[in-house]
Amino acid sequence: MKDAAIILSGGMDSVTMLYEYQPDIALAISFDYGANHAANELSFAKYHCNALGIKHLIIPLKFMSEYFKSSLLEGGDAIPEASYNEDNMKSTVVPFRNGIMLSIACGIAASNGLKKIMIANHGGDHDLYPDCRESFIKAMDRAVYEGTYERMEIFAPYTNLSKGEIARHGRRLGVDYAKTWSCYKGGDKHCGHCGTCEERKAALREAGIDDPTEYLN
Amino acid sequence: MKDAAIILSGGMDSVTMLYEYQPDIALAISFDYGANHAANELSFAKYHCNALGIKHLIIPLKFMSEYFKSSLLEGGDAIPEASYNEDNMKSTVVPFRNGIMLSIACGIAASNGLKKIMIANHGGDHDLYPDCRESFIKAMDRAVYEGTYERMEIFAPYTNLSKGEIARHGRRLGVDYAKTWSCYKGGDKHCGHCGTCEERKAALREAGIDDPTEYLN
Repeated sequence: MKDAAIILSGGMDSVTMLYEYQPDIALAISFDYGANHAANELSFAKYHCNALGIKHLIIPLKFMSEYFKSSLLEGGDAIPEASYNEDNMKSTVVPFRNGIMLSIACGIAASNGLKKIMIANHGGDHDLYPDCRESFIKAMDRAVYEGTYERMEIFAPYTNLSKGEIARHGRRLGVDYAKTWSCYKGGDKHCGHCGTCEERKAALREAGIDDPTEYLN
Repeated sequence: MKDAAIILSGGMDSVTMLYEYQPDIALAISFDYGANHAANELSFAKYHCNALGIKHLIIPLKFMSEYFKSSLLEGGDAIPEASYNEDNMKSTVVPFRNGIMLSIACGIAASNGLKKIMIANHGGDHDLYPDCRESFIKAMDRAVYEGTYERMEIFAPYTNLSKGEIARHGRRLGVDYAKTWSCYKGGDKHCGHCGTCEERKAALREAGIDDPTEYLN
């Protein structure tokens, strides 16, 4: 039953979810919040929706780059070159980003007669991003249920998977990861050195996928 | 301690809250989501922030009038002339509007080192708007707590007050209700007949305030 809207960034995780749950998905919603890497991500999001015949909206939230504090919104030079485990990756947090995207997606989904909002948060994000943890997803699920006539639901089936496990799902589904974006720097090619590039490489390796990404170096 | 951001519409309730909790408020945030009555409301929101020396942001969410289903976003003629108790006022619901405003205000407040988000939902809204009820506010409070490093909080002290009781607070504080907006129709003057105009009149009467509003008829 096509009763879900998915939050689709154009990264590995949400693109995998789009393919895995395609029969349930009526609408994909992307957000342009002024991140360095927005153009690259969004063009891949659109590519996969076109390929699957799924309606796709891009919601402009450019005010976030003006009023929110995050190195992700400050230009590529501000992105630290380090693994996700290191403290300085904290600077890439955009406060309550998943709460904002889930809330807007909830209103749009309810307006379109849908029942569920899907999001591809995963286990590898838990340490760094509070709004990727199961405790947040549960609380937000309760909020969309209580706050709508439609008794909306959040469906986040990757919450306790690693990025490598998600890539294994993608391998099985034949997802073309060359057409996904991870790098936070925002150049034409993946930098290959920032935390998200390192994480991408490791996940593809873990899933036994020959990395199809064209890196800068 | 000035550690709160308030969601300020420019209507009676949030303007009263602005005056009542002024010592706690560092920042007021208004949203322009393309409602019929946006220009009137927002100019009053700005007026009171200027009067009190409180920083004021207006966040553009014009995409809501494109993608959300609500008579509030469809032009003044779509607004029913009826009391809040009647079923057709349901058409004015904007799905999950308070969830969206609270989420964005949470991210901005956290980015500015604040701890609380204030919202002026009240008891009279409960029947019609699911996202004004205590059960929603509690769930959303949990979500902003779980979803941020700052362990943000929602403060909604009018949740169980009637609009008349809020107006009594305003009377005590000397709030000038001529400089607040209620009408959902979006003309230059309050129409005097829509559900929100009826509710405004009743609240001022209940509080023993001579209604300073210039109505169309």
